[in-house]
Amino acid sequence: MLRDLILKNRSYRRFNQAEAIDRKTLIDLVDLARLSASGGNMQPLKFILSCETQTNEQIFAHLAWAAYLKDWDGPSEGEKPSAYIIILGDREISQSINCDHGIAAQSILLGATEIGLGGCMIASIKRDALRQVLNIPPRYDILLALALGKPAETVILETVRCDGDIQYWRDELDRHHVPKRTLEEIVLS
Amino acid sequence: MLRDLILKNRSYRRFNQAEAIDRKTLIDLVDLARLSASGGNMQPLKFILSCETQTNEQIFAHLAWAAYLKDWDGPSEGEKPSAYIIILGDREISQSINCDHGIAAQSILLGATEIGLGGCMIASIKRDALRQVLNIPPRYDILLALALGKPAETVILETVRCDGDIQYWRDELDRHHVPKRTLEEIVLS
Repeated sequence: MLRDLILKNRSYRRFNQAEAIDRKTLIDLVDLARLSASGGNMQPLKFILSCETQTNEQIFAHLAWAAYLKDWDGPSEGEKPSAYIIILGDREISQSINCDHGIAAQSILLGATEIGLGGCMIASIKRDALRQVLNIPPRYDILLALALGKPAETVILETVRCDGDIQYWRDELDRHHVPKRTLEEIVLS
Repeated sequence: MLRDLILKNRSYRRFNQAEAIDRKTLIDLVDLARLSASGGNMQPLKFILSCETQTNEQIFAHLAWAAYLKDWDGPSEGEKPSAYIIILGDREISQSINCDHGIAAQSILLGATEIGLGGCMIASIKRDALRQVLNIPPRYDILLALALGKPAETVILETVRCDGDIQYWRDELDRHHVPKRTLEEIVLS
């Protein structure tokens, strides 16, 4: 059931770094994005794959993790992602990506979840520096970084309380709690 | 397998209009979006559901269909969508929706596909007029309209030819062909 897959597909930020992900797996995941919808069928998205220590480190150094967790700088050695998929927008194809990267990212992460992996869509990226280190030409906008790995944390969904606070938090057992708005709040009519 | 679901989840624009979709089904689909990722967990998306003739007609009148099919003005009576989910961005929650609506739309359409429905993400909307007819307050941006129904057309994926043309087209049997870029073209490294 898709609902089970969507429930399992949480935003994971800590992984078992010892579990490698090979390039073939990343290609298969990008293929899911390739086969998904694109505005006006323009298909302006391009992808950079990384599953090796050196490029993983280069990417990791340019990402910001979990803005609401002020005491946590991101995954430590041993729990970092094993791979990344960087989603780019090709300006020579289209100036307006609209939400294509959201469609693509959701397909990729659902696919990762299905094979026992997990990940996180990260938009908080030091784009200029990452562009330089990965030699990304100016024609490509850096839209999203998908961090991927074998999840090594527990994520618990809960309902947003009456104060309306949507910030995720970690409890004393280091479990990650994510407040979600109710159907009543989000369905207007 | 998710891949099969993604392959089955084509952009459908002609439906068996006699097959109704009830509100409970739409709510269940929105729940899939609710349980999906949102940038900074802000969850700024709101949803308007329609599965009754009058509102369906009001929405239909404000959508543009299949820009590349110059000889086709959209589905005719009998093959129109049975329901719609309008995705809004709540400016009082966030000014930057990023790609949340893409994530949500993909979850909803995959969910629809799983239960034998199908649909199309439509961004080409006469927004001012639709806002007026549906009484949508200014705090909400109209992001996407998802048209939903029981698909009544055949969609065939093919590879973009060497001329690079990505426009979908219909053959003499009225089948809808969609050229997709290859993995080789979209994976940069």
